[in-house]
Amino acid sequence: MAKDKKVEQITDMDVDFTQWYTDVCTKAELIDYSSIKGMFIYRPYGYAIWENIQNALDREFKRYGHENVYLPMLIPESLLQKEKDHVEGFAPECAWVTMGGSEELEERYCIRPTSETLFCEHYKNIIHSYRDLPKLYNQWCSVLRWEKTSRPFLRHREFLWQEGHTMHETSQEAREETQRMLNVYADFMRDVLAMPVVKGRKTDKEKFNGAEETYTVECMMHDKKALQGGTSHYFGDGFARAFDITYAGRDNQPHYPHQTSWGVSTRLIGGVIMTHGDNHGLVLPPRVAPIQAMVVPVAMHKEGVLEAARALLGRLQAAGIRARIDESEQSMGWKAAEYEMKGVPLRVEIGPKDIENNQCCVCRRDTREKVFVPLEGVEETVKGLLDDLHESLYQRAQKNLEEHTHACHSVEEVKAFMENEGGFAKTMWCGDEECEVRMKELCGVTSRCIPFEQEHLGDTCPVCGKPAKHMIIWGVAY
Amino acid sequence: MAKDKKVEQITDMDVDFTQWYTDVCTKAELIDYSSIKGMFIYRPYGYAIWENIQNALDREFKRYGHENVYLPMLIPESLLQKEKDHVEGFAPECAWVTMGGSEELEERYCIRPTSETLFCEHYKNIIHSYRDLPKLYNQWCSVLRWEKTSRPFLRHREFLWQEGHTMHETSQEAREETQRMLNVYADFMRDVLAMPVVKGRKTDKEKFNGAEETYTVECMMHDKKALQGGTSHYFGDGFARAFDITYAGRDNQPHYPHQTSWGVSTRLIGGVIMTHGDNHGLVLPPRVAPIQAMVVPVAMHKEGVLEAARALLGRLQAAGIRARIDESEQSMGWKAAEYEMKGVPLRVEIGPKDIENNQCCVCRRDTREKVFVPLEGVEETVKGLLDDLHESLYQRAQKNLEEHTHACHSVEEVKAFMENEGGFAKTMWCGDEECEVRMKELCGVTSRCIPFEQEHLGDTCPVCGKPAKHMIIWGVAY
Repeated sequence: MAKDKKVEQITDMDVDFTQWYTDVCTKAELIDYSSIKGMFIYRPYGYAIWENIQNALDREFKRYGHENVYLPMLIPESLLQKEKDHVEGFAPECAWVTMGGSEELEERYCIRPTSETLFCEHYKNIIHSYRDLPKLYNQWCSVLRWEKTSRPFLRHREFLWQEGHTMHETSQEAREETQRMLNVYADFMRDVLAMPVVKGRKTDKEKFNGAEETYTVECMMHDKKALQGGTSHYFGDGFARAFDITYAGRDNQPHYPHQTSWGVSTRLIGGVIMTHGDNHGLVLPPRVAPIQAMVVPVAMHKEGVLEAARALLGRLQAAGIRARIDESEQSMGWKAAEYEMKGVPLRVEIGPKDIENNQCCVCRRDTREKVFVPLEGVEETVKGLLDDLHESLYQRAQKNLEEHTHACHSVEEVKAFMENEGGFAKTMWCGDEECEVRMKELCGVTSRCIPFEQEHLGDTCPVCGKPAKHMIIWGVAY
Repeated sequence: MAKDKKVEQITDMDVDFTQWYTDVCTKAELIDYSSIKGMFIYRPYGYAIWENIQNALDREFKRYGHENVYLPMLIPESLLQKEKDHVEGFAPECAWVTMGGSEELEERYCIRPTSETLFCEHYKNIIHSYRDLPKLYNQWCSVLRWEKTSRPFLRHREFLWQEGHTMHETSQEAREETQRMLNVYADFMRDVLAMPVVKGRKTDKEKFNGAEETYTVECMMHDKKALQGGTSHYFGDGFARAFDITYAGRDNQPHYPHQTSWGVSTRLIGGVIMTHGDNHGLVLPPRVAPIQAMVVPVAMHKEGVLEAARALLGRLQAAGIRARIDESEQSMGWKAAEYEMKGVPLRVEIGPKDIENNQCCVCRRDTREKVFVPLEGVEETVKGLLDDLHESLYQRAQKNLEEHTHACHSVEEVKAFMENEGGFAKTMWCGDEECEVRMKELCGVTSRCIPFEQEHLGDTCPVCGKPAKHMIIWGVAY
């Protein structure tokens, strides 16, 4: 009977990182494929990670006064077209509804790829006076983008996300909100996902369609490629003008409000996998792990073992630790491999010997080291181990980021670095889009961001030789 | 400045209940209209009620071992067609996606009106052995039904809901699940929404498309019309056969699993409004109220008032009460009317006199009575008042249900009762669909359910005179 289940092998990440990633997504039971290409099923274990992300972020959003709303999933084509840059960016990847029941619609509707236009339409109805500002709204929903290629969590045609949309009296306030929410993301990624980030501004070429400025938190994956973790946009009053949203100001004159939007999506789960995973499977940072500690009884059928294991489970749960127990007939080897594959931070074994010695045996997922832990005070010890594991994951990722970020002074140096080593190349930049495009053509990299933490690497742009304005980071992105 | 805002009048509910309802939905800022007919915007105050409903139900679902998942929003037409009864019921109200980007799709996709077909497709992939059963999945999402008429919360083209979908080894287990979840709904409605329900089975005519049996919790609104609060379906193995889902049983032979689904939606919010509301607006049961107590400082600019009000707020919040404070310049009259309109259960006023007497003044939303409450132990007193208010709302609704449920013994009696008084008419019934249709034609009522609590009102069906099988309840439904 125990033979019925087996933990399947996964591809070695150093041999084929892409296949390793897909293996982890399916074999850790995070995701399944549906019959429509690019539309994935979030399975319980994958969705539970998203629920933990949602809970942590939603609390932060509300702490800053944001309120959740839900707007329709369909956007009339005429509404989408109101802001020119925006529609140009999104129209090519919209899915269009043309029939309602058996009737052809007079106007076709796209399934929201993002909801700026819908929020603006609503804001026009409800913003009249400066007393109605700020409006700090957020929406948890799915969005749809009809992309040609797909990969679990990283590129779905339909994916889950949150989109914050805010309106402010002054551009100063809107700019502060843009930065505040970028920091919420960066802090969340550090403190909950154990992911270090580079904060910075996107170039005009890479910014969001319709935004004045886009800010980003960029992460480096284990394979040294870049992942954009979240973005925060400052819109100025561009959409407000396009949608004719005005409010009566303190001077009793009409004014346009200033707008932001910001979002993160389930691609963060892809980021977690590719930041922390290893050749045994997923490695989950404890604060988003659906199961933080899996209790495994050893020699389960011996007297007193199951009782002791359940008592231990009860103590851990009572202390607020997300603990479970595996009382199945599977072998110890199978259980070890299974919970390693699923990235459970701690496996807690308890058998007759342990009971005798008033201890249990805790195996950390990151180092796979085993330590014996006295049952007395086990709750605090386990909590301490979870915190320690979080910190270790963060430090390891931070080291990966630092070791593979390299200052380059010429196009050739960037090219050689990307070819031989890979990672983030930092260079000076004149600020011209032409040089940005040229770097991409020559080195196969895109600009990731102009980091807030600037360094002086020289005086000139390595592409054109003209005076440099900023230090910029280049990479190959997911 | 204070004159800038005003609380608008709403229609008298006894004059025009429908208009009263719409007024409450918009003026309590629960909902806004979008540019697409029948697609509504859930505003922060309305969405917060839904979040409270979600939290309470999700906890119950998980307590019984259910796990959340997220499946795609699009269903290929061929997949929808696999179960014949199901597609016949839903195809006429599907919205169809026919274009992806600039390309015509080879097959059109409908936006999910419900997800049985998607769950079955997934279950086919993941259910192989009896060890994989039961599967207890739930999904929180929006669904779309292209209806011709619409009304806030009660009938949206897109609405938010949860849909549970479970698979079991035996029909016995599946039947138990169907009843368990119906009871979860009934208990939730009693304990959280303060709504009494009639539990029962739907007739074959009224059951869900593709289900073997549908169970319902039926509620009576203030205008004596019926609202179906939630449904729980037993499918037998009909979908499993249509989708060819089999598992290897304990006997090592292939078997079809047995299935259930169950759901409630944001129409519960409509039910809350129409059960408890009055001519001053919304009346929210405390356990779903986004704001349970609104602290209003009286003579705010007098020394010490604001400090005392804020201290009171802090104490209430620390005790876990969802309390807020209104420090705006609006008049006391405006504030009273505003929070009555919004159905806030308790308004807590505190002014110089109260501070002197070490008390505050609490006004209940249901009775609009004011009581003075000592500041000492105010947290417990307020909690007690909230519980008491919940109980009063429930009792009032229960009285409404009992007083307007009437045993009838002939078609004429049903007709007269519905015309003169309105409510739930209970009669015996032979069980034939012909008589059910006939009752509708003659009296303008639909069957609500065959209640679990049966009574013997006679021996014959009042329509055909043949022997009666059940007692059934008739009403006019939203």
